[in-house]
Amino acid sequence: MSSPKRLAQLLSAHNTRPLFDSVEAFLFDCDGVIWKGDKLIHGVPQTLDLLRSKGKKLVFVTNNSTKSRRQYAIKFQSLGLSVTEDEIFSSSFAAAMYLKVNNFPQQNKVYVVGGEGIIEELQLAGYTGLGGPEDGEKRVQLKSNFLFEHDKTVGAVVVGLDPDINYYKLQYGTLCIRENPGCLFIATNRDAVGHMTDLQEWPGKKVNLHVVYNLDNFVSLQFLFWISGAGCMVGAMCGSTEKEPIVVGKPSTFMMEFLLKKFQIDTSKMCMVGDRLDTDILFGHNAGCKTLLVLSGVTTQSTLQDPSNIIQPDYYTSKISDILELLGQ
Amino acid sequence: MSSPKRLAQLLSAHNTRPLFDSVEAFLFDCDGVIWKGDKLIHGVPQTLDLLRSKGKKLVFVTNNSTKSRRQYAIKFQSLGLSVTEDEIFSSSFAAAMYLKVNNFPQQNKVYVVGGEGIIEELQLAGYTGLGGPEDGEKRVQLKSNFLFEHDKTVGAVVVGLDPDINYYKLQYGTLCIRENPGCLFIATNRDAVGHMTDLQEWPGKKVNLHVVYNLDNFVSLQFLFWISGAGCMVGAMCGSTEKEPIVVGKPSTFMMEFLLKKFQIDTSKMCMVGDRLDTDILFGHNAGCKTLLVLSGVTTQSTLQDPSNIIQPDYYTSKISDILELLGQ
Repeated sequence: MSSPKRLAQLLSAHNTRPLFDSVEAFLFDCDGVIWKGDKLIHGVPQTLDLLRSKGKKLVFVTNNSTKSRRQYAIKFQSLGLSVTEDEIFSSSFAAAMYLKVNNFPQQNKVYVVGGEGIIEELQLAGYTGLGGPEDGEKRVQLKSNFLFEHDKTVGAVVVGLDPDINYYKLQYGTLCIRENPGCLFIATNRDAVGHMTDLQEWPGKKVNLHVVYNLDNFVSLQFLFWISGAGCMVGAMCGSTEKEPIVVGKPSTFMMEFLLKKFQIDTSKMCMVGDRLDTDILFGHNAGCKTLLVLSGVTTQSTLQDPSNIIQPDYYTSKISDILELLGQ
Repeated sequence: MSSPKRLAQLLSAHNTRPLFDSVEAFLFDCDGVIWKGDKLIHGVPQTLDLLRSKGKKLVFVTNNSTKSRRQYAIKFQSLGLSVTEDEIFSSSFAAAMYLKVNNFPQQNKVYVVGGEGIIEELQLAGYTGLGGPEDGEKRVQLKSNFLFEHDKTVGAVVVGLDPDINYYKLQYGTLCIRENPGCLFIATNRDAVGHMTDLQEWPGKKVNLHVVYNLDNFVSLQFLFWISGAGCMVGAMCGSTEKEPIVVGKPSTFMMEFLLKKFQIDTSKMCMVGDRLDTDILFGHNAGCKTLLVLSGVTTQSTLQDPSNIIQPDYYTSKISDILELLGQ
């Protein structure tokens, strides 16, 4: 396991080959690594093709819980990438697998503060999910004689990014965790900042957006829009239940332990590739993988090299297709 | 200042007179002390009348931020109690006063994740509040080219209990705190459990409510409905901003410092009367007041006397009107 404090090396013609040869499985974050919003990052298809042709296993690990694995496979296909559900590990899937490996009883229900992706993964794993998008329009009345009932058979509450968050769902989840004996509180992740949406059109007025000078000439200038992540909804539930959640997404190692059982590859022969220091790179470190930071997402070189940053990947580069060039392919 | 670990004494004919004589101002929490939902607690008017007739100052200190002082005065009147705005210290008022005593510039705006009460108190203090109930129906679209603009002149975000919480407000407040230089993050309080609503009618089906065997025979059996408090909304903002708020309500001593300046009474001559250990009694302790817990609200005698409880009031009794009887009035 590499020390988080050793300074990251820029990926070069010198160190790429040894890295490539020593790694059997590449684990990719998606947002900011494979795509940005709805746009594929330059050179991704060729890079994935090369890795596959050399017998490397590919795994796509994302903290985004709004989609199921099936929905992610469709997104990959829509971008022209042939990726199977088996290669995708979303935090929605991780939540369902956490219940499964811990023998959560099938007769117990699961309340979801989050999107359709979690509901679908729960269903595929044989569980009944309540809430989610279905409760998006429900309201609580703060007045005398208003009765708020909740299902006593709910044995777990799963919280993820929820653009339709409301008081009803927060109250429902809170009641389950506070009142149902032994009810689990599971978070897909605690990312403060979640999605990015591309803003490709300049709207002709002064806007307050992060401007990232992209190293990839294919996209000359990128406007990123930061949206509150699942950490927001998870924080809400912590505040009302006074409990801490079980986190199943990055940087928790639950997904990695699951992957290890599935692939039987030693983590020292895995490389985690991501654009975020506090989730992707920390996740890789926590699990004992090699780590590669790409600057095509949320992290800039100056953030990486700022003295206050204590999370250092083993390597960094501008985007994953640099591997192609550096290997002379 | 009394030690939090000394066991609480039951209020008795023996100790009530010395307490009464040594106290110049009584600070009352409202929910669970003065009223419960929309119902006055037995004996309250007579008790307040006696205290006033003996020259005691009365102050009503509530963490509930949904109402302004004006709106609270109306509630007191509707219950037949003559209480002036000057005697009321709500956390909505505290938020506005925090800005005022810290010379927050009047040209800067304040974004509110919370109710009408905060907006009104800000206005009365000369500030412009944005958000609040007005943003209750707004929605965020998570798609490309969606532009989320926020006001760059917002210099503070105030977060309180918000039954109309949504992603738009959380996102707006998050952007202000993350992007506007020096923007303050103020919480009215962090209570996990907020309001209680009485359920006076048994709806004829199995319900999952807390049953409190009330010591007051006037209300033979009480069903309480727990609703997530401001801690829920504050937790959400902490999760998405990765910052901690300035808390102006109980148990923070900001309100007490403000009261001290106003009344010029030494805190050792004040008695905080409340139904909650972690806000009211802790608030009293923190400020160096005498403390009296009443069991007419959320805390039961068994919770008070549980070995795990480390917050001990100086005295406890079933309800405030016990003072009348114990003084032989």
